[in-house]
Amino acid sequence: MPHPNDPKLKSFIAVDPASDFPIQNLPYGVFSTAQSPALRVGVAIGDQVLDLALLESEGLLRTGAERCVFAKPSLNAFMALGPKVWSQTRARISELLRDDHPELRDNAALRKRALLPRRDAKLHLPIAVSGYTDFYSSKEHATNVGVMFRGKDNALQPNWLHIPIAYNGRASTVVVSGTEVRRPRGQLKPPTADAPSFGPCKRLDFELEMGVVVGGVSPMGEMLTEAQAEAMIFGFVLLNDWSARDIQQWEYVPLGPFQAKAFATSISPWVVTREALEPFRVQGPAQNPQPLPYLQQKGANNYDLHLDVSLRTSAMKAAANISRTNFKYMYWSSVQQLVHHASGGCAMNVGDLLGSGTISGPEKDQRGSLLEISWNSSEPLELPGGDKRTFLEDGDSLVMRGWCQGDGYRVGFGEVEGTIRAAG
Amino acid sequence: MPHPNDPKLKSFIAVDPASDFPIQNLPYGVFSTAQSPALRVGVAIGDQVLDLALLESEGLLRTGAERCVFAKPSLNAFMALGPKVWSQTRARISELLRDDHPELRDNAALRKRALLPRRDAKLHLPIAVSGYTDFYSSKEHATNVGVMFRGKDNALQPNWLHIPIAYNGRASTVVVSGTEVRRPRGQLKPPTADAPSFGPCKRLDFELEMGVVVGGVSPMGEMLTEAQAEAMIFGFVLLNDWSARDIQQWEYVPLGPFQAKAFATSISPWVVTREALEPFRVQGPAQNPQPLPYLQQKGANNYDLHLDVSLRTSAMKAAANISRTNFKYMYWSSVQQLVHHASGGCAMNVGDLLGSGTISGPEKDQRGSLLEISWNSSEPLELPGGDKRTFLEDGDSLVMRGWCQGDGYRVGFGEVEGTIRAAG
Repeated sequence: MPHPNDPKLKSFIAVDPASDFPIQNLPYGVFSTAQSPALRVGVAIGDQVLDLALLESEGLLRTGAERCVFAKPSLNAFMALGPKVWSQTRARISELLRDDHPELRDNAALRKRALLPRRDAKLHLPIAVSGYTDFYSSKEHATNVGVMFRGKDNALQPNWLHIPIAYNGRASTVVVSGTEVRRPRGQLKPPTADAPSFGPCKRLDFELEMGVVVGGVSPMGEMLTEAQAEAMIFGFVLLNDWSARDIQQWEYVPLGPFQAKAFATSISPWVVTREALEPFRVQGPAQNPQPLPYLQQKGANNYDLHLDVSLRTSAMKAAANISRTNFKYMYWSSVQQLVHHASGGCAMNVGDLLGSGTISGPEKDQRGSLLEISWNSSEPLELPGGDKRTFLEDGDSLVMRGWCQGDGYRVGFGEVEGTIRAAG
Repeated sequence: MPHPNDPKLKSFIAVDPASDFPIQNLPYGVFSTAQSPALRVGVAIGDQVLDLALLESEGLLRTGAERCVFAKPSLNAFMALGPKVWSQTRARISELLRDDHPELRDNAALRKRALLPRRDAKLHLPIAVSGYTDFYSSKEHATNVGVMFRGKDNALQPNWLHIPIAYNGRASTVVVSGTEVRRPRGQLKPPTADAPSFGPCKRLDFELEMGVVVGGVSPMGEMLTEAQAEAMIFGFVLLNDWSARDIQQWEYVPLGPFQAKAFATSISPWVVTREALEPFRVQGPAQNPQPLPYLQQKGANNYDLHLDVSLRTSAMKAAANISRTNFKYMYWSSVQQLVHHASGGCAMNVGDLLGSGTISGPEKDQRGSLLEISWNSSEPLELPGGDKRTFLEDGDSLVMRGWCQGDGYRVGFGEVEGTIRAAG
């Protein structure tokens, strides 16, 4: 049986070469339809969705689990089955969709029930988020922020090159792409003010990140090896870590960001599996000083994953690109992040979501936040049509896209979109 | 019908005046027995446990819910029914246990099935923790820490008197009293070292806290009023926020504590309801400057709740008291904490747990952590038998107790205990 990553595979469903969802991808999501409102797991293929709950109920998709795992409102039950089942299932779905395999191709009645146009599917949060952690692992981003607030000579904190720095975020406000984001209120104290006031955030920002979806368990009190951590990663999503810069500035000393990051975190609806990204592994940046032994990693630990951010204000007809960067620039890899997370004995669970941290690149047009793009408001962003932005305004819509480019196909993530709604 | 808090009430079950669990308390927990290993909800009364799952299945306890809520491994289903049902249920349990009510008292067969000795009950984590947040709301504690690390003149950070400072903790390692706590490993960099190393924490500490158990929902994007927040508080537990001071010192700038607090948080097995604590409300410390309007609270917003910490090293025969303080000293109340938590639009859920922050009092013997008791190791604690401690050593057992003293009875929490196990 050919490997599901084989670039030569074709599906009997026609897929545009520019589509994010060829047969080499097969990302998982949770969907419902107007006719059938129960949430269930599906796979994106071209402009279609394949209903896995239906295939499972027809006996065409066996996972070894005693109960069904796809007629569920999240991927968690499927993820809990572990990496061997993830691979077997993906291989079976690939087989069912191949143009040289008749089982589904030649069964018109089944095809009609199991496949639906993607535009008819309402997409939901794909995972039940157990814990949400946000890292800070782009050296370019940490350096940009450091230069802005502490100057060039103290840009990176002393611990940054030794620890994949992170904080625990709020799982309760992780939402799926398309969910409106209400501008948060909070305590604000500009440097010139004598006392804080409470009101709508004035420095509302996005942060371009990838999210790791954890599909395994690390028990309390145990550590993870590099190989164990790798095997626990089910897949990746695009992630927008919405940030209230002014709330953060006043609240974050000494225990870190709290309300500044608690109002919303948006993720893309399709979880691209780690396996689908394998062909796009690349070596990450050299790490100097060498990490401590528990964090050392061999081989290509990053992904050549193109990222693109666009913004549409309410005055604009079409969105305009405002940043183009790549996941490969990240200094600390996802595996290093997960190893560090468990290193003190912290229990890790199926459904944990790890934000990579804002992904900026070495160039000016590769910055992953408005704070950096407008260099703390000193260089407002000029948009087609004349709108200017230092931070996000009500009605602004922010879209992130990501994809790995193969030869004649791409393995993509679709998008994560969020529109800003006025404070209540 | 008398109010369940009436001090004159007596149960047909004899309760020692020094017991934490008279009929005026009725705290909820989750238990199992060797004979009947299914987890279920019970109430502590004297040295007995009342099996609510059994009473519910016999039709003696009606909550209005379509399905049973007590034959469950957590209190969450019961809590989700809301404050009216909490009150009605507590009143009904009180009635069933009263010495002047024959229904259970005179039904020997039912009593035999519904009541069991507390020593035969294995107690479990009482709630499924949705999110765990840790506040920092004792002015005495924040001042002590500030004086140690920044000197007297800069002891309190500028934001502290305006914001109930908090960070998101890790829900996955909240454990019930009696769970062994493994000494964490982590990155350590003493000020004299050139580079960090990875190894067992050398400055392992406890933090004496209370935990608020949230039993209601605040939707994403909404704020809470004082009254709404109050009504969402189901009850309280004792909470030990185990802390690795050396790991924290190196990792916490700029995003706050992460692995230093992620290895374990212990809570007491019995959740004492907010209603049971009502008779013990007292006015908290004066707040100056006046909080911003959204945080202003009228009336008695604290509780006169005695707290007591004892330590037993492996060389000691009996535990020795090392701190005696009171929950009433807290500067920010639990209601203010919850209001602030939701103020930016952060969704709050049934099962959220809010640690109060370390509870220290104004006197030297009222300090809520070893960091403060030993004044950052400069004044080692001397224990009966000759053992000295600056921080916790392997084999040390730490016990916290808490109670409100009524006239002839106490409403208590039992204890939260944890013993330190060597790093793996």
